[in-house]
Amino acid sequence: MKALQRKRPHVVIVGAGFGGLQAARALGKAPVDVTVIDRNNHHLFQPLLYQVATAVLSPADISAPIRAVVRRQRNTEVLMAEVTGVDLERQEVITHERRISYDYLIIATGAAHSYFGHDEWGAYSSGLKTIVNATSIRRRLLLAFEAAELEPDPEKRRALLTFVLVGGGPTGVEMAGAIAELAHKVLAGDFRHFDPRESRILLLEALPRILPAFPEHLAQRAQEALTHLGVEVRTSSPVEKIDEEGVIAGGGRIPSHNVIWTAGVSASPAGKWLNAEVDRAGRVKVLANLTLPDYPNVFVIGDTACALQKGKPLPGVAPVAMQQGRYVADVIRRRVTGQRFPGPFRYRNKGSLATVGRSFGIADLGKLQFAGFSGWLLWLIVHIIYLIGFRNRVLVLFQWAWAFLTFERGARLITFESTAKSPVDEPIEELL
Amino acid sequence: MKALQRKRPHVVIVGAGFGGLQAARALGKAPVDVTVIDRNNHHLFQPLLYQVATAVLSPADISAPIRAVVRRQRNTEVLMAEVTGVDLERQEVITHERRISYDYLIIATGAAHSYFGHDEWGAYSSGLKTIVNATSIRRRLLLAFEAAELEPDPEKRRALLTFVLVGGGPTGVEMAGAIAELAHKVLAGDFRHFDPRESRILLLEALPRILPAFPEHLAQRAQEALTHLGVEVRTSSPVEKIDEEGVIAGGGRIPSHNVIWTAGVSASPAGKWLNAEVDRAGRVKVLANLTLPDYPNVFVIGDTACALQKGKPLPGVAPVAMQQGRYVADVIRRRVTGQRFPGPFRYRNKGSLATVGRSFGIADLGKLQFAGFSGWLLWLIVHIIYLIGFRNRVLVLFQWAWAFLTFERGARLITFESTAKSPVDEPIEELL
Repeated sequence: MKALQRKRPHVVIVGAGFGGLQAARALGKAPVDVTVIDRNNHHLFQPLLYQVATAVLSPADISAPIRAVVRRQRNTEVLMAEVTGVDLERQEVITHERRISYDYLIIATGAAHSYFGHDEWGAYSSGLKTIVNATSIRRRLLLAFEAAELEPDPEKRRALLTFVLVGGGPTGVEMAGAIAELAHKVLAGDFRHFDPRESRILLLEALPRILPAFPEHLAQRAQEALTHLGVEVRTSSPVEKIDEEGVIAGGGRIPSHNVIWTAGVSASPAGKWLNAEVDRAGRVKVLANLTLPDYPNVFVIGDTACALQKGKPLPGVAPVAMQQGRYVADVIRRRVTGQRFPGPFRYRNKGSLATVGRSFGIADLGKLQFAGFSGWLLWLIVHIIYLIGFRNRVLVLFQWAWAFLTFERGARLITFESTAKSPVDEPIEELL
Repeated sequence: MKALQRKRPHVVIVGAGFGGLQAARALGKAPVDVTVIDRNNHHLFQPLLYQVATAVLSPADISAPIRAVVRRQRNTEVLMAEVTGVDLERQEVITHERRISYDYLIIATGAAHSYFGHDEWGAYSSGLKTIVNATSIRRRLLLAFEAAELEPDPEKRRALLTFVLVGGGPTGVEMAGAIAELAHKVLAGDFRHFDPRESRILLLEALPRILPAFPEHLAQRAQEALTHLGVEVRTSSPVEKIDEEGVIAGGGRIPSHNVIWTAGVSASPAGKWLNAEVDRAGRVKVLANLTLPDYPNVFVIGDTACALQKGKPLPGVAPVAMQQGRYVADVIRRRVTGQRFPGPFRYRNKGSLATVGRSFGIADLGKLQFAGFSGWLLWLIVHIIYLIGFRNRVLVLFQWAWAFLTFERGARLITFESTAKSPVDEPIEELL
């Protein structure tokens, strides 16, 4: 690659998620050269990934090409490459093909789902962090019903129609609601040899309550909404084992071919790259200005960072990452232009939202807390506003309206790798 | 599967393409039980598949769940299964798991692309018949530009940016136009180390002219439109070889990493299942009523059939398949209800359409023949009308309008199988 003749400081951003993209955009007019490196060519709007997994939206609806997002920033280039390490002494980012030198480095590589040391569970369950995760889950969900139509044995059919979500956080709750509606409403009437409404959807949470990040009374309302949709919520049910037969939790075995893991995440390998001190989730411990100790030109943000506020680590949510991205961009711009340090990063929590099914949501805006249709409406508005690109907004809004009015799902699509020959003939596990 | 207690004749339809789905719908009110068997869970609107391959539309936009299409037909069941053969004597369709007995059988399994005995070419080029084909081509197209951004060697970059379409039929012509617009318009400005407008798009045709199915003067207009879009059209250039370096055609070698094959198709293996007489393309030779000789209750339609009209075989296009599907449904309904035979199948050719780029099309409606924006508009209207489902129509229309007005592409998404680790690091061939 023709090396740019750089007179200006070079900012390298690894990862084009919420944090990295905000940083890149905020540096668009700064007197620096910016290089955004991502293994994918697109930014992914993860909060709606569960809607791809449940056949509401298509992957492209919640993705935006990184190049298109920063096209008009002439100081910004995008490299699609896999970062394998960082050379802190030489100030270089290492990819498979080359080393890219930096003056300032922003690590925003996010997190992956984690089985808390039980990686073998990954063979029998799926996490939900990438588009491939989402389309695999979509395929398994839809194939389970197809296989049930062909399954004469009632017990085996029951296992096919039992969907277990591990983890009572927002993702688990939203997935459970969406799967319940898929089974009990969308697919009702589509089969001749069984009734999809027989399907069981279980939500397992190890703690005594779901949605621990929300106030008790809102979580309670969400649980009632889930129950109303036909989801069995089991709290204080830590998972002991996941195998080809299903899940063992709270002492009992739940036969299931469809286990979805939303219980835990661990940060990207950035901690190893930087040889830095990390927390239990593998997140890099950073200083109050989000830099790596002893490396004031290396920033770590978003799910990859363990940043403390009032002694407590900030949650791994999009708003934190976005605010951190804008903050580090501001810090860098001020340093380059010789302005004074803006002071330590402070997260302003604008509140949290979660949705259960097609018309119920909970909103915790600090003083203002409410649940119901109004919560769902706020959830919808906020997500549409933050979704990148007018086109995607219109497409998603239309498809939501369509799904809302007709109970249809637009993306009921089972696709296979070129290698896979036949659909229902192969064990569903293999399709993960 | 709980066998249905059938008092009524059982019609088994293999394949839910244009022909099979038309037959199923036409039998919805007939006094028969209908079973539709397909390896996929969705009907695919193949005429727009090239728009998935060129990042205009998402796979789900041109797909409809078969179950949803026939949901209201209580006499119709859908089985997602892979048919492996037919037992004509026992009147049974054989799938991996079971045999399904029929009183009437409709084979509508379509065609696959064919390399005319050069299957080894498949390793270095891709056909366009399935959604997996389309997303693979999309991935390769987009990755070629990503790799070019990282490629210092001008010769290698030139090979990455050379796109060769083999076959001057409608698919090749429409793909060429769409790729030219992607390279010269959509991606212009998205890269910093090369100009996507350097890209070469070649359309190779073995015959002396493209679009042989169209009148000479319309094909000429289409060729001018392609040239205007920057496509190099080479007629009388039969392909001699396709390998990892590119294509050898008309004596010369064309270095290219992106070869797309639209030159030939061969029918599904139905001919072997039926142990029937087939033509050179593997299509089953059927009688004037579309039945298999000696088997008046076995029908073969669409791309799988070689049906003669005025001594000439009918073309493998959607209108033929749809009219044949309705015809065989009519024949079966009449037999079951004791009405008289409707007479041999006659194809009514309503005309042919092809489009070049975003605002030019050709239309051959027999007496009425025209080219230009009007041809494109007619193409658009016809395709929207035949696209199944109001939702898909709105989504596709909106995305076309968006692409037309902004020159953006909505589905610029590179996705990988869970196995694939890193994007640009692996040879593009492997991503096929």
